[in-house]
Amino acid sequence: MKTRITELLGIRYPIFLSGMSWISVPMMVAAVSNAGGLGILATGPMDPEETRKAIREIRSLTDKPFGCNATLLMPGAMANAKVLLQEQVPVINFALGKGDWLVREAHKYGGKVFATVVNARHARRAQDYGADGVIATGNEAAAHGEAVTTMVLVPSLADVLDIPVVAAGGIADGRGLAAALALGAEGVAMGTRFMTTRESPLHRNYKALSIQMGVTDTLYSKRFDGIWCRVLKTEAAEKALKRRIDLLAAFVNSRDVARQMKMPYGKLLIGILASGWGNAMKMANMANGFKAFQLATEEGDLNRGLLPVGQATGLIHDEPTVAELVERIVAEARQAREGLAARLD
Amino acid sequence: MKTRITELLGIRYPIFLSGMSWISVPMMVAAVSNAGGLGILATGPMDPEETRKAIREIRSLTDKPFGCNATLLMPGAMANAKVLLQEQVPVINFALGKGDWLVREAHKYGGKVFATVVNARHARRAQDYGADGVIATGNEAAAHGEAVTTMVLVPSLADVLDIPVVAAGGIADGRGLAAALALGAEGVAMGTRFMTTRESPLHRNYKALSIQMGVTDTLYSKRFDGIWCRVLKTEAAEKALKRRIDLLAAFVNSRDVARQMKMPYGKLLIGILASGWGNAMKMANMANGFKAFQLATEEGDLNRGLLPVGQATGLIHDEPTVAELVERIVAEARQAREGLAARLD
Repeated sequence: MKTRITELLGIRYPIFLSGMSWISVPMMVAAVSNAGGLGILATGPMDPEETRKAIREIRSLTDKPFGCNATLLMPGAMANAKVLLQEQVPVINFALGKGDWLVREAHKYGGKVFATVVNARHARRAQDYGADGVIATGNEAAAHGEAVTTMVLVPSLADVLDIPVVAAGGIADGRGLAAALALGAEGVAMGTRFMTTRESPLHRNYKALSIQMGVTDTLYSKRFDGIWCRVLKTEAAEKALKRRIDLLAAFVNSRDVARQMKMPYGKLLIGILASGWGNAMKMANMANGFKAFQLATEEGDLNRGLLPVGQATGLIHDEPTVAELVERIVAEARQAREGLAARLD
Repeated sequence: MKTRITELLGIRYPIFLSGMSWISVPMMVAAVSNAGGLGILATGPMDPEETRKAIREIRSLTDKPFGCNATLLMPGAMANAKVLLQEQVPVINFALGKGDWLVREAHKYGGKVFATVVNARHARRAQDYGADGVIATGNEAAAHGEAVTTMVLVPSLADVLDIPVVAAGGIADGRGLAAALALGAEGVAMGTRFMTTRESPLHRNYKALSIQMGVTDTLYSKRFDGIWCRVLKTEAAEKALKRRIDLLAAFVNSRDVARQMKMPYGKLLIGILASGWGNAMKMANMANGFKAFQLATEEGDLNRGLLPVGQATGLIHDEPTVAELVERIVAEARQAREGLAARLD
């Protein structure tokens, strides 16, 4: 295949693995890059040393381009992002913050930078400070999409940007890839679909649920981690919808986060409280969400876990290997192209 | 073009005009059918005699196939639907109710029946009792979509149905048409895009707003007419979001509805109250929504009016004639096909 994304990054297929915490680990990243796509490492749950180790592990598993994400809103993201620059990772994908300095530094060694965006304002700003592309997250996506859906967001961004758009949200097969390209995207990012593959470390309890559940089986709310977030509709998620924020749990969970990031907890807590009540509540929500996501992903906990998934979970019916999946998607997209050609004559 | 929809209905392009109250009037219906698509008359605001007159007017303006809708939840819908059968309209598009009897009666004279659906359960049921196709309404659509977006709803329905799927929601140009076909649809229905055409009777105040506003400028809530409904984000709509239901207004507005339908009001009111408090509140909400939609559409009232629009309103930048628009969409879809062909090689 040949799109602006395959050309820009030197990859075979314009298919990204979204950087999903506890899922987009080195083995998954390498599997997607080796299959011809672009794996993106999730650095959210890691401290700088773990991030460095993970990047080196990816490099031991593949000689293909890969990416790493940087969720700038999260505590510790800055320190991790600096490691990405030191290690000169080929692609950096930042979200929830301003990545102008990342663009500046990455361009020095020839790295490419993608901004994850949900609207034209953020996308234009990223283009203005030199980002190489955007990942446009539609409402149907796992976790943090906003109101605008892929069907509308992608063409609206393609209309106003010069840099290429990668579509995220609602894509699980070759029909979705073909549709995204028709809408003006130059590639796709998939999270939910890659989550249920042989190589994915997602706990088998949730792989089984992802295969069983339908397109209506997600919930979308600010109650899960403080910002608009889509998760699998389990009993635990329905309970979380009704619950008010549990500050005691947030206290315990934020200590977990600090420990995971190897940050001094006192400093973290003071920093958060000093940033104002609104921000502290946001961080409390995030800490609880973070813990619930980890319990689902790693431990398969059906009572306290929450799994971010997109509506595309309803389009998933099997657990192929990453390589099988990528080849199948490309074949299906070509089939969709033939169907389209015949029908549009 | 040639899809299962063009073959089934004997039309040139698989492009439907959605049946929008006060907009999909005979002249608009005929314009879309004459341009090669399928116009669908909105019967919601009419009594049986007006419906009959409108159908005859369409027949005086075009010899092409056309459709009429029947929103079965609305008071008076049954009486109107019987007129559609008597007049043997080529296509009946029903929504918000069970249309098995419509299918049975329409098939007697060779009419085709499409069910508007938002999920697989309704779609399968419609297929089981003989509907000829479904119109799948995604979350991004004007008015009454549910949570699942076009990108996901269309392939999920195409996977489980034998009858063809028409995609509605998020489509305003040829990229959208090509994408919908790639996803497995056999055609598209457009409301928001057709609303802003030369022939459309939408008040110029709202045509101007539709052209100006962006993809994020819609609101989606149950507050507008009692069920999930997407409208243009105006000050009036933001106020409506915060307001509790106004029962006095509902009383006045429901009298308007009754007058418009030429239904005896006392009987209507008793029927509604007898159906229980929940249903009465739903009807009260609907009466208020109905009035606000009419004020926007016909009178251009920016203070009290509400205009149902889809997110695709942000993709609209001009006011072409219906014929120009249809030809442009087909040309753009063919262009998207060429782009896709080159990129998927």
